[in-house]
Amino acid sequence: MNRLNWSELNELARAEALQRPVQAVAAQTREAVAALIVQVRADGDEALRGITARLDRVQLDDIEVTAAEFEAAEQAVAADLRAAMEEAAARIRRFHEAGMSQGYTVETAPGVHCERMIRPIGRVGLYVPAGSAPLPSTALMLGVPAALAGCPQVVLCTPPRADGSADPAVLVAARLTGVQRVFKLGGAQAIAAMAYGTASVPACDKLFGPGNSFVTEAKQQVAQDGSVAIDMPAGPSEVLVIADAGANPAFVAADLLSQAEHGPDSQVLLLTDDAALLQAVEAEVERQVALLPREAIARQALGASRLIQVDRLQDAFDISNRYAPEHLILALREPRAWLGQVQAAGSVFLGDYTPEALGDYCSGTNHVLPTAGAARAWSGVSVASFQNTISVQSASAEGIAAIGGCARILASAEGLDAHERAVALRMEAVA
Amino acid sequence: MNRLNWSELNELARAEALQRPVQAVAAQTREAVAALIVQVRADGDEALRGITARLDRVQLDDIEVTAAEFEAAEQAVAADLRAAMEEAAARIRRFHEAGMSQGYTVETAPGVHCERMIRPIGRVGLYVPAGSAPLPSTALMLGVPAALAGCPQVVLCTPPRADGSADPAVLVAARLTGVQRVFKLGGAQAIAAMAYGTASVPACDKLFGPGNSFVTEAKQQVAQDGSVAIDMPAGPSEVLVIADAGANPAFVAADLLSQAEHGPDSQVLLLTDDAALLQAVEAEVERQVALLPREAIARQALGASRLIQVDRLQDAFDISNRYAPEHLILALREPRAWLGQVQAAGSVFLGDYTPEALGDYCSGTNHVLPTAGAARAWSGVSVASFQNTISVQSASAEGIAAIGGCARILASAEGLDAHERAVALRMEAVA
Repeated sequence: MNRLNWSELNELARAEALQRPVQAVAAQTREAVAALIVQVRADGDEALRGITARLDRVQLDDIEVTAAEFEAAEQAVAADLRAAMEEAAARIRRFHEAGMSQGYTVETAPGVHCERMIRPIGRVGLYVPAGSAPLPSTALMLGVPAALAGCPQVVLCTPPRADGSADPAVLVAARLTGVQRVFKLGGAQAIAAMAYGTASVPACDKLFGPGNSFVTEAKQQVAQDGSVAIDMPAGPSEVLVIADAGANPAFVAADLLSQAEHGPDSQVLLLTDDAALLQAVEAEVERQVALLPREAIARQALGASRLIQVDRLQDAFDISNRYAPEHLILALREPRAWLGQVQAAGSVFLGDYTPEALGDYCSGTNHVLPTAGAARAWSGVSVASFQNTISVQSASAEGIAAIGGCARILASAEGLDAHERAVALRMEAVA
Repeated sequence: MNRLNWSELNELARAEALQRPVQAVAAQTREAVAALIVQVRADGDEALRGITARLDRVQLDDIEVTAAEFEAAEQAVAADLRAAMEEAAARIRRFHEAGMSQGYTVETAPGVHCERMIRPIGRVGLYVPAGSAPLPSTALMLGVPAALAGCPQVVLCTPPRADGSADPAVLVAARLTGVQRVFKLGGAQAIAAMAYGTASVPACDKLFGPGNSFVTEAKQQVAQDGSVAIDMPAGPSEVLVIADAGANPAFVAADLLSQAEHGPDSQVLLLTDDAALLQAVEAEVERQVALLPREAIARQALGASRLIQVDRLQDAFDISNRYAPEHLILALREPRAWLGQVQAAGSVFLGDYTPEALGDYCSGTNHVLPTAGAARAWSGVSVASFQNTISVQSASAEGIAAIGGCARILASAEGLDAHERAVALRMEAVA
């Protein structure tokens, strides 16, 4: 890990310290993804089978998961895992439901009613990755808000396993949230199928979910094309921990490693005003990393990590707001008192007993969050991500008389005569 | 205008009837925009001056509007226009304020508190076009919600006039909403400046506002690059009117023309179950269009327009939801009774006395709306467009004991041991 003292760094060194591991998409990836999209658009299901045979080394009979496969999955998943998924889904549902927006109406002038209606997005596509391991928790994080929003068509893609089946836990999680249609597709080909549709896979209005660099690049390309909306730009996972002298070094080290084990390009940062804590955490990381099955991955991620000493905790918050981390852990004695300082982050974890893993799985918040600084202008997935708002206005004869004059002056000032006349005609009719 | 009978069309003809005028960005536009962006990133203000001299034929002394220019604008704007802008701003503020989201907290398990905080986006950039005429109303539509959101840095770009000054009405509108920094920049160069920053123009986290094809393409390119978020993909303006036998043909024609005068690529559609109304509207359009100063533009737009007869009004709503119009006018006797049928649209106008122009200017709703079918997955601008939500969780010793077991089972199932250990460590500490 890289130890730095913030006050000793010049602006250039500071910018470098907060640089994410290189995220520029290789031209090779971009071209490969573009080629896959072209293939899927041209040849539909045939292309999906061909690409899956080539990249996943799996011959798909059914692209879509069958009723029998869902049934087998129910049998295959252990009772305690199923119970944990149900427990997590219940808390995710509770938190997300409480944050749902309601429509409203305002009489903005006598006889003029303006309102906002909320509608589910009609067709949504969820992507559940299965890189080193399938992630049933992601199926919950996407499926629960889609169901709360009331989306009439929800489809889910997840990569096939070596034997051509889908991961049973992912299937059970999907069913728990009410998702009925699951396709055994991964990578850019899954994104292309959901964006443009094939004979098997319906075209969707919006795509959700994390994924590797191919999935991410494919989402960007189909969104750029204007065919479909996406939840957010995605990138490697990251955590920033702000700790004070009272923090528990073993806890902090465990949280840093939780992030580091995600992938070699994960980034972890620790900011503290206490030199002793920084040293203790570094020793603890070294001790704990050696115990991990995914030690090699974690060590790679630690190579790009930073342990930064600051003069004051306030400096740590300034740095954090500049970096805009996906996950922000406040390992502080009075974390809530500092919360007002947080301006940009995906999800925040307060105090010693709130490891990031709680939010990843079952506190109730969503784990699909903006990375790579996107938290400056994007938010994590919520029910609103699956809804549109539509504004509605209604003017009575009294209403057009009340505000028509204002509209006519503005229309004239903008040189839009037909606008002015459309209002004037009504005003004459009600005069 | 093109008259069609929906029930006589096969699926291919129906798809064609709902086709927007070609929106594919010419490769030429794409390359020109990319070149402008490269220039601005490389040479900053110098590039901005050079491009403005070349494209706008204006030598800019100050890129930023000075205090003296703001002062002169206040003097230049007529009292009635100023009053109309103030009146419109007040209603826009009232409607948008009533729809603001609040943070909330839920105790999802004993000792586990999850909450959502709302924060303004730090640096936002607004674009106010001035194609055939400057649009001060757009400054209000963007500036008011930005102010309500509490964005600490708001900048606005609008093209310079021939004499190098900014439009006085746009400046007054900007000031009315609290925008302090305005730059005399238009087109792709304005978007590039706000996305990447120059010595004069601060780099922004999110860009807002409509514009011509260069502005739209530039927004897409900077968003694709991941540097900045954008409000929505934009395209030519459009209206769909659903009218019944009782509708007033003169009103309907005036509304169709309000849209057609925006630009030659605007699209207008009329759907009705009454053949006589359809005929009457067509005659009225012909009568009214001849009276418009922008007749030539309107006639071009009418060339791509459609008058579609349907068997039942329900068919009209099915077609509208498929088309997902930016503006939807319900010129019906019982418009509110039909509102439940509207699934995808930007903004809806109810009844005979609610011309689209009211929403464009001063009913209180926003006029920055999704076009080109984007209303299927995007919503118009609101205060939420200028805010981020951040989730927060806090578990006490009791909390980790309550939900830690669930997290451990899920982490183990996903093969993420460090996650499992980060929870286990805490559970051991509190046991």
